[in-house]
Amino acid sequence: MMNKKKIFNDPVYGFITIPYDILFDLIEHPYFQRLRRIKQLGLTDYVYPGALHTRFHHALGALHLMTEAIESLRSKGVDITEEEAIGVSIGILLHDIGHGPFSHALEHSLVNVHHEELSLLFMETLNKEFGGALTLAIKIFTNTYPKKFLHQLISGQLDMDRLDYLSRDSFFTGVHEGVVGYDRIIKMLAVRNDELMVEEKGIYSIEKFLVARRLMYWQVYLHKTVVAAEQMLVRVLKRAKELAQQGVELDVSDSLRYCLYELDSDKKWNQNASDVLNNFARLDDYDIFAALKTFTQVQDPVLALLSKALIDRKLFKIELGSIPFKSDYIDSIRSKVLETFPISKKRVDHLIITGKETNSAYNTSKEEIKILYKGGKILPMSEISDFGIKTEIITKYYLCYPKNIPYF
Amino acid sequence: MMNKKKIFNDPVYGFITIPYDILFDLIEHPYFQRLRRIKQLGLTDYVYPGALHTRFHHALGALHLMTEAIESLRSKGVDITEEEAIGVSIGILLHDIGHGPFSHALEHSLVNVHHEELSLLFMETLNKEFGGALTLAIKIFTNTYPKKFLHQLISGQLDMDRLDYLSRDSFFTGVHEGVVGYDRIIKMLAVRNDELMVEEKGIYSIEKFLVARRLMYWQVYLHKTVVAAEQMLVRVLKRAKELAQQGVELDVSDSLRYCLYELDSDKKWNQNASDVLNNFARLDDYDIFAALKTFTQVQDPVLALLSKALIDRKLFKIELGSIPFKSDYIDSIRSKVLETFPISKKRVDHLIITGKETNSAYNTSKEEIKILYKGGKILPMSEISDFGIKTEIITKYYLCYPKNIPYF
Amino acid sequence: MMNKKKIFNDPVYGFITIPYDILFDLIEHPYFQRLRRIKQLGLTDYVYPGALHTRFHHALGALHLMTEAIESLRSKGVDITEEEAIGVSIGILLHDIGHGPFSHALEHSLVNVHHEELSLLFMETLNKEFGGALTLAIKIFTNTYPKKFLHQLISGQLDMDRLDYLSRDSFFTGVHEGVVGYDRIIKMLAVRNDELMVEEKGIYSIEKFLVARRLMYWQVYLHKTVVAAEQMLVRVLKRAKELAQQGVELDVSDSLRYCLYELDSDKKWNQNASDVLNNFARLDDYDIFAALKTFTQVQDPVLALLSKALIDRKLFKIELGSIPFKSDYIDSIRSKVLETFPISKKRVDHLIITGKETNSAYNTSKEEIKILYKGGKILPMSEISDFGIKTEIITKYYLCYPKNIPYF
Amino acid sequence: MMNKKKIFNDPVYGFITIPYDILFDLIEHPYFQRLRRIKQLGLTDYVYPGALHTRFHHALGALHLMTEAIESLRSKGVDITEEEAIGVSIGILLHDIGHGPFSHALEHSLVNVHHEELSLLFMETLNKEFGGALTLAIKIFTNTYPKKFLHQLISGQLDMDRLDYLSRDSFFTGVHEGVVGYDRIIKMLAVRNDELMVEEKGIYSIEKFLVARRLMYWQVYLHKTVVAAEQMLVRVLKRAKELAQQGVELDVSDSLRYCLYELDSDKKWNQNASDVLNNFARLDDYDIFAALKTFTQVQDPVLALLSKALIDRKLFKIELGSIPFKSDYIDSIRSKVLETFPISKKRVDHLIITGKETNSAYNTSKEEIKILYKGGKILPMSEISDFGIKTEIITKYYLCYPKNIPYF
Repeated sequence: MMNKKKIFNDPVYGFITIPYDILFDLIEHPYFQRLRRIKQLGLTDYVYPGALHTRFHHALGALHLMTEAIESLRSKGVDITEEEAIGVSIGILLHDIGHGPFSHALEHSLVNVHHEELSLLFMETLNKEFGGALTLAIKIFTNTYPKKFLHQLISGQLDMDRLDYLSRDSFFTGVHEGVVGYDRIIKMLAVRNDELMVEEKGIYSIEKFLVARRLMYWQVYLHKTVVAAEQMLVRVLKRAKELAQQGVELDVSDSLRYCLYELDSDKKWNQNASDVLNNFARLDDYDIFAALKTFTQVQDPVLALLSKALIDRKLFKIELGSIPFKSDYIDSIRSKVLETFPISKKRVDHLIITGKETNSAYNTSKEEIKILYKGGKILPMSEISDFGIKTEIITKYYLCYPKNIPYF
Repeated sequence: MMNKKKIFNDPVYGFITIPYDILFDLIEHPYFQRLRRIKQLGLTDYVYPGALHTRFHHALGALHLMTEAIESLRSKGVDITEEEAIGVSIGILLHDIGHGPFSHALEHSLVNVHHEELSLLFMETLNKEFGGALTLAIKIFTNTYPKKFLHQLISGQLDMDRLDYLSRDSFFTGVHEGVVGYDRIIKMLAVRNDELMVEEKGIYSIEKFLVARRLMYWQVYLHKTVVAAEQMLVRVLKRAKELAQQGVELDVSDSLRYCLYELDSDKKWNQNASDVLNNFARLDDYDIFAALKTFTQVQDPVLALLSKALIDRKLFKIELGSIPFKSDYIDSIRSKVLETFPISKKRVDHLIITGKETNSAYNTSKEEIKILYKGGKILPMSEISDFGIKTEIITKYYLCYPKNIPYF
Repeated sequence: MMNKKKIFNDPVYGFITIPYDILFDLIEHPYFQRLRRIKQLGLTDYVYPGALHTRFHHALGALHLMTEAIESLRSKGVDITEEEAIGVSIGILLHDIGHGPFSHALEHSLVNVHHEELSLLFMETLNKEFGGALTLAIKIFTNTYPKKFLHQLISGQLDMDRLDYLSRDSFFTGVHEGVVGYDRIIKMLAVRNDELMVEEKGIYSIEKFLVARRLMYWQVYLHKTVVAAEQMLVRVLKRAKELAQQGVELDVSDSLRYCLYELDSDKKWNQNASDVLNNFARLDDYDIFAALKTFTQVQDPVLALLSKALIDRKLFKIELGSIPFKSDYIDSIRSKVLETFPISKKRVDHLIITGKETNSAYNTSKEEIKILYKGGKILPMSEISDFGIKTEIITKYYLCYPKNIPYF
Repeated sequence: MMNKKKIFNDPVYGFITIPYDILFDLIEHPYFQRLRRIKQLGLTDYVYPGALHTRFHHALGALHLMTEAIESLRSKGVDITEEEAIGVSIGILLHDIGHGPFSHALEHSLVNVHHEELSLLFMETLNKEFGGALTLAIKIFTNTYPKKFLHQLISGQLDMDRLDYLSRDSFFTGVHEGVVGYDRIIKMLAVRNDELMVEEKGIYSIEKFLVARRLMYWQVYLHKTVVAAEQMLVRVLKRAKELAQQGVELDVSDSLRYCLYELDSDKKWNQNASDVLNNFARLDDYDIFAALKTFTQVQDPVLALLSKALIDRKLFKIELGSIPFKSDYIDSIRSKVLETFPISKKRVDHLIITGKETNSAYNTSKEEIKILYKGGKILPMSEISDFGIKTEIITKYYLCYPKNIPYF
């Protein structure tokens, strides 16, 4: 018998082997192929030009780590049946299937549905199509399956999702500060009392992991230029929706048209679940960027200015502060913008953006990472004396506005 | 004085420093920013999911290697003035600025202009905008500048373009067989008689480079699945152009519309150079993929089938042979396709694709790589006895057609 | 002119170029070649089998980083004359030339001279041989040269010594937790008020550097098994010296014989500086390990047991605690050792080792790392609110003794 | 149950897990620990300073690849019982246990036993000690076990020995030209007709492997400076043996003394197998280098000169040619050496070294690498048209003599 297993080349892990046939069938499904057209990090490539990797690639990577985690745990005697292995593998493969394009921006403008709800909707639809083969996977995903540690492998402090995205985002951005010893962490995983934990020898890898995660937040996920670009996109989409609601005709794709003209943010989305699904299943980065390009030609000066600035990467200036910006200061900025840009007073606030960002610090109040000592003792990371884990949540306020964008 | 130099994070080289202000101004220009939206390897990510890097990133990478090559040559006493250093740096930065989206496919369907001609057109336009600051760069690019070795750094057997794309394509595909010792090659560069060559100690790196290049052709650039996808895209664009010429209305962006409806393949393109430039300056991957997505809904079954197959990655089967496929065999395939797909006899040939691919082997008849020995002797690679460089050009014929595409 | 510059292959940085002729002459000197025979990390390869890199390689690596630091600083307008560049390069090349084999163990047993004093002695001797060419280097090394930032590049919070050894030790051990963004840190170096500092954009790299350093301490430098092996070597050397002082004849090399039989720990070593130099200049890892091998055959049971255990890597058990071990507990261990090993009561304490280790945390009371903000403001790391740098010094007490060493 | 598996950090593969208890017991044995003191590449670190990795580390690495190969083959349905898996793992772990220090030099001077014979002797001795647990391993190692493909995994065109040493030597030298896609090759392994082969998809990896191997020969294994150093060591050992046979007393370790004074090159070594074993089990790099250091002080000028030159890395000049050097030319060199060095006419030939080196090209006459096509067809590499594998064996003649060694 020849090797039938499908293998993907992956610059991060070398090769990714797909261990079960059903996984391969799911990967081939148009719902999953759509993830090829959705970048994992949205507009981050405006700062880190290599950061073009997709949610498709991330899902495969997380699956790869899951395969390794299952092998590691089994080798230590943790009981994982073949059905459970398939279920938890499907769960990780599809954990992000509900993500839309630039979802951070989209969820703050057009779509009032959280991507996890949509992921579940996609899974349930696929489950029908696959004759119930995803039932166990859905139980694990929704944490209604008795063996809780399986859910933790998909969604928890040390889940395969996070291990992959930190590794992958760090790899493609070139930000080595985010490199995580995923292989060592996986080799050190253990299960006690139906809970995922880490053997004592892996403690330094965990500390490194927490530090890397924090640095990735400040250097990549909340990089000020990335925030500026995303906020500009939020404003583009909000303005487009306003215009659409006023009946202005915009040249956009059908699925984006659905979001702008028909998706009602006041109604509960799941009253139209099948419409949402149908349109979402076709929505990707190409819809958004194609729209941005046509928006550069529209009459509305706000939409045109924001879109052209985004396309040509003439990003707004962004200022940061540890307290909210004073209204006096914002007023002075508003005046300057009015002087410089051919925009009317009533519309200028479309170009003045304020907001705040907080990092996702390690949170001791939620589920903690636990360390399993040789003698059997179990301690949460926060109680281990050598390590003073930073749990402080830091808030940064920003003020974002056009400046030195010469050709408008 | 603070560090004013712009630095880009690059997962391939770590950091890319932009050495001259004018380079940075050129990078900020919308013409160059457009390259952010054009993938270097077209549809190759259908086989290697990491291969999403852009021509923008490649141009920065080639610039980085040029900076290192200038430093290496100067350290050996090769005279390169500051003006020449700026010129050759501009030349490499802009060497691909004329590339369109999926240019391999585009140049075989819609556009009868070679990208190098367009690159020159872009450069000349920029030269006007920058008050003549690109004049020397253009001379080097067109090989009309006296110091010929400068042109060779941009376009030659060992140019920085090729060193970067082999390194970068190998990195993002994860095909380690293509890794090239670019740093060692650059350290071993020398100039004699106004010609670029390589010091004796670099001979193994050159052999490795030639092997890596050949392997990249077979494993990546001419990978059969990539060829199948590209040929499908060629057929999509040809069919769209046919329909456009017949007056069928297609929902595409303005700049793609120009290519489909107005660009006349019989007329010389440069009679409308400014139109071409204006439309090309806005054409990118988003136009093509957005069009593909709308094409999935058109009435024409050929265009719809091809587009939906591409979007959902239901790629045609591709067969390879060392001689052209016999017409009998093609007939038998045609019959099977007719049986399976709801397509009329007169249109079935839109779905049966034949052609050939040849690798770009090292060609001794063209400019050869020369080795500089310690004593001063200079030998072309092909005459060095230890190495039997493969110069054979291999042709592979392909036959490509739909099979097992269940849901059409 | 051919490339005359000597290039070393280095798996860590790719290539190391030697920028000045005098550096190459110094490298060729037997004093420096001796460093080829002295491992950087002593017995650490007993835990990390790849950790066999030498002080020779580290010195070349630190020189490489110095070359890059000089280039980075000059590119920002920091004035470094050619003489100063040569001086600071010599200084870093020779900064560890006084190191003996297994110097951590040696300095706690045989030799009461600190390696920095010996490095200076070596440099002064070389300065005579090289006709005064090292005078400026020695001034910088001893911090008596006016431009203080040059000394900081050799010895300071962010010196090239430390950047190289963290990178190199992490590379050869395979402990990725220790990877440091040396290239980014060097690109972010700046000088203000004659002091080395780091530009604001480098702040995350600095935090990563501090974390990496701390993790390397616990995972590598103070790894308990490494500590056990080193303490066994200390006991071997102390016992050998005792026996030597009692007139017992041991079969060792001449230079080790000098340390055992003639070097008097009570007298000031520099009364015999030339003897010390002559013998030290020949002492390396081979003397110590050859001696260990002959010691396995000696009559003295302590020396034989310890040596054989070290050669065969039957390492003592080591226990750690956060407070000193109680004498009761030590007594109980002593009894067990007496039961198990054929050793007399008066000698058993040679096999019971207690001590403590402390990590070298970031110390705010000493010279601090300073951050240079865009506006010109300068802040020490410890005052930057986002970062809670760990400055706590942790002490671990150990108790080390033979257990389960079956064949003695 | 905690993770009991022993894990080694390895910079090449990340981690090496020891899959069976008996392997761990064998690793702990002094015979195997001795390999910690034997460098894999002898004096190669004189050219590539990172090349200090040991035969210990290589053996662990080859074991790691074997573990992966077993898993890969089993996943394709190749039947490998647990006993066979243990046997082939022991076989690869111990395949080089008979290697002496600097074995290339030693086998040309002192010892007339091939290391494979000694490896078998060591294995048989261990088999007694381990109560017959190595019996199956020895059968596989000596190719007397029915399933021949198991032997091929230890010793064949694509054995785990070679895959590891190419990867490891390339890694530690920093010669990236030697990097081999070991992971892909292992994933592509197959067994047909009890023979190891490679699936069609792995063909490019095999070509890369053959090229990498050839480049490693010329760039590392037969590097002219490494050859010069090794030939000097051969001459040191030959001269020491001559002096020993003449009754001159040399200060060397017991086990080296055995080789110099007692091992008779005319008698068959296995008449004294247990003496040979006892002495070989203690012989390592430290014996040779400690001897070299004492030889620098001996009266015999030949031995002293050669030894001091080696210790201080004042290597002989080496000239290469494609035909043997003419006796006239050798005479002229001899005269110059006589003029320059205080050596008598009758001894001068100790310093004039001639010889030849040939690369180990891919040899089609021996067992060939076979490719398994999808349809089941099997072809040897040499018959695959796309690839012109170089099978030419190249011989280089060298002449090696002292020059510019100023201080003798």
